Amino acid sequence: MAESFKVTPWEVSGLSGETYEKLIKKFGVKKIDGPLIQKILNTAGSLHPFISLNLFYAERDLGELLDDYRKGNKFYLYTGRGPSGKMHIGHLMPFIFTKWLQEAYGVDLVIQLTDDEKYLVKNLSRKEIDGYVEDNILDILSLGFDPKHTHILVDSKQSGLMYNYAVDVAKHITVSTIKAVFGVKDSDNIGKMFFPSMQIVPSFIIPALTGRKMRCLIPYAIDQDPYFRVARDVIPKLGYYKPSAIISKFLPSLQGDSGKMSSSVESSAIFLSDDDKTVRRKLMKYAFSGGRDTVEEQRKHGANPDIDFAFNAYMMFEADAKKVRQVYDDYKSGRMLSGEMKELAAAKISEKLADMRAMKERIKGNLAPYMFDPSKFSQ
Amino acid sequence: MAESFKVTPWEVSGLSGETYEKLIKKFGVKKIDGPLIQKILNTAGSLHPFISLNLFYAERDLGELLDDYRKGNKFYLYTGRGPSGKMHIGHLMPFIFTKWLQEAYGVDLVIQLTDDEKYLVKNLSRKEIDGYVEDNILDILSLGFDPKHTHILVDSKQSGLMYNYAVDVAKHITVSTIKAVFGVKDSDNIGKMFFPSMQIVPSFIIPALTGRKMRCLIPYAIDQDPYFRVARDVIPKLGYYKPSAIISKFLPSLQGDSGKMSSSVESSAIFLSDDDKTVRRKLMKYAFSGGRDTVEEQRKHGANPDIDFAFNAYMMFEADAKKVRQVYDDYKSGRMLSGEMKELAAAKISEKLADMRAMKERIKGNLAPYMFDPSKFSQ
Repeated sequence: MAESFKVTPWEVSGLSGETYEKLIKKFGVKKIDGPLIQKILNTAGSLHPFISLNLFYAERDLGELLDDYRKGNKFYLYTGRGPSGKMHIGHLMPFIFTKWLQEAYGVDLVIQLTDDEKYLVKNLSRKEIDGYVEDNILDILSLGFDPKHTHILVDSKQSGLMYNYAVDVAKHITVSTIKAVFGVKDSDNIGKMFFPSMQIVPSFIIPALTGRKMRCLIPYAIDQDPYFRVARDVIPKLGYYKPSAIISKFLPSLQGDSGKMSSSVESSAIFLSDDDKTVRRKLMKYAFSGGRDTVEEQRKHGANPDIDFAFNAYMMFEADAKKVRQVYDDYKSGRMLSGEMKELAAAKISEKLADMRAMKERIKGNLAPYMFDPSKFSQ
Repeated sequence: MAESFKVTPWEVSGLSGETYEKLIKKFGVKKIDGPLIQKILNTAGSLHPFISLNLFYAERDLGELLDDYRKGNKFYLYTGRGPSGKMHIGHLMPFIFTKWLQEAYGVDLVIQLTDDEKYLVKNLSRKEIDGYVEDNILDILSLGFDPKHTHILVDSKQSGLMYNYAVDVAKHITVSTIKAVFGVKDSDNIGKMFFPSMQIVPSFIIPALTGRKMRCLIPYAIDQDPYFRVARDVIPKLGYYKPSAIISKFLPSLQGDSGKMSSSVESSAIFLSDDDKTVRRKLMKYAFSGGRDTVEEQRKHGANPDIDFAFNAYMMFEADAKKVRQVYDDYKSGRMLSGEMKELAAAKISEKLADMRAMKERIKGNLAPYMFDPSKFSQ
């Protein structure tokens, strides 16, 4: 029987709660369980709502990495962004979480921008992609990353550093593997066949540059798992640790839970560039609600916040975990109505986007301190 | 019916005079004919023996390039070397010829060392390949190239420059094309699938860096034709001229005409590192002769210099075209015997190798002026 969902780096469809359970088996990742949550709490000193609310729900070798951390061995973080469009708020989720990890554990973070891949698979010019690269970097950094410990790696800018490592990786991956894992076809271009090597490089680049054994933790949404499944096969052959992973579901998209939010349809998402009025209008007009059809039913049965766009958007931007929990309980119990949830989300999103736009203006033209500089890591 | 010969970048076997005629049809190249030879003579001012003796025997768009040259539009030259072993004298042939072209036309030359490809397809470590890169560069330059107009491009060292251009190329080549043209298989690694993009880059790198329309002429042995057939399909899509080509047969190998000389078997070739005694011994003991079985027959019927290793080696190193022609005629007519031909070749090879070794010592540790420097070409 054909599966009713599809989750690959280039296509996500047919998502449901069940799908996420099935993907755990299909991809061979582990669910984040109680003892591991306790271990995160013990080592990080707090627990991010994305974990307690089960948005980051799966992992690979996370326990081993945390055990090592407890022994005094620092890891580093690696996450990324494919710069093929302007960013919407859903794109921020992994970065918000990664920033929390970075600060909680006091570790370095590599952020890769895969502009080469986007050029290879999209019908976009270099110039258009260059524009997105710059704008996306500003958007990501406007979350307030620490330039001392944040290292932006743009593939097209750092290929002099990355290509030789990518060749090391490529030597250990067959064409068959890429076909099986990514569904790349004979009619695809040869760049798409090679590119996974480039995406794997940051998961060992710091140990490669420093010559020190060091673990890497990669937070990512489950559609990116194929890259890191292959990475975990190859990297030990090059003498480095298998990267660990902490893996998320997708946030519900503005108009419902059927896939990732898309940057190509204006009404499908709230963009970071949307003004307050647009944010409120999109929430009121389009936002998929986990609430009931009538006020009476809502008061009686409560909402399902997990699939509610407004709640998820609010949760993402509310730094106070206790407040998030309170809203979750109020909404779920029926004490809070859908309209109230949307208003709360609109206010929180607008507040945060205004902060980010101010930050963006401050760092514009001053990105150098954030850019990956191999000399910072040289042996 | 299966073909009795095989000529690909990774395997050459079953060569004969007939094969070269068949390859012209199979690969769709043109034979260098009388009018074109006249055009070369008119523009270069002289004719290299490799052309008059039919060693460089085929071409692509060479006439167009020379017509443009006559109008004052300079082209540039591009050739290369895969650094997977020490060099034997057969490897010098394209470089000797390219140096003649460079000087006759007064043009720039890019020499690519494809160390990434060798790492991907051979069972060699980076360190071993790095050693060959350095030694091969010294060997090539010891022919006396002019550092002002010679630009050595080592893939692993210049990937910061080359990778983005390679991605431009890769976007226009499908996996199917690489399978069909190069015979790359699903069980091969993905680096081998991508690598042709890197080999194609130097054929437009100078116009890419300068922003000026400029033709490129690539001298190569016929086994490398697949790369440039693909190059000619792709490069016009990027806005540059199709590269022109001047294409050679292989020199007969030491022990006969069945394939390329191999760097892996000591007795299969005369290496640049061989001393006088070894050169003479290899010639006397192994060199495949185009002469007759007895002195009487040789005097009566003469030799076939075209397939004679000693003659070809002598021809390669004798700068005086008239002398080469004289020896050719004497040997072919029976005035010269095989033993004499071998002694003449031994003396000429030893003389040339001694010169090259002296030159090699002089430039060792001083390669910087020869290395590809993009700032020399920047717009």
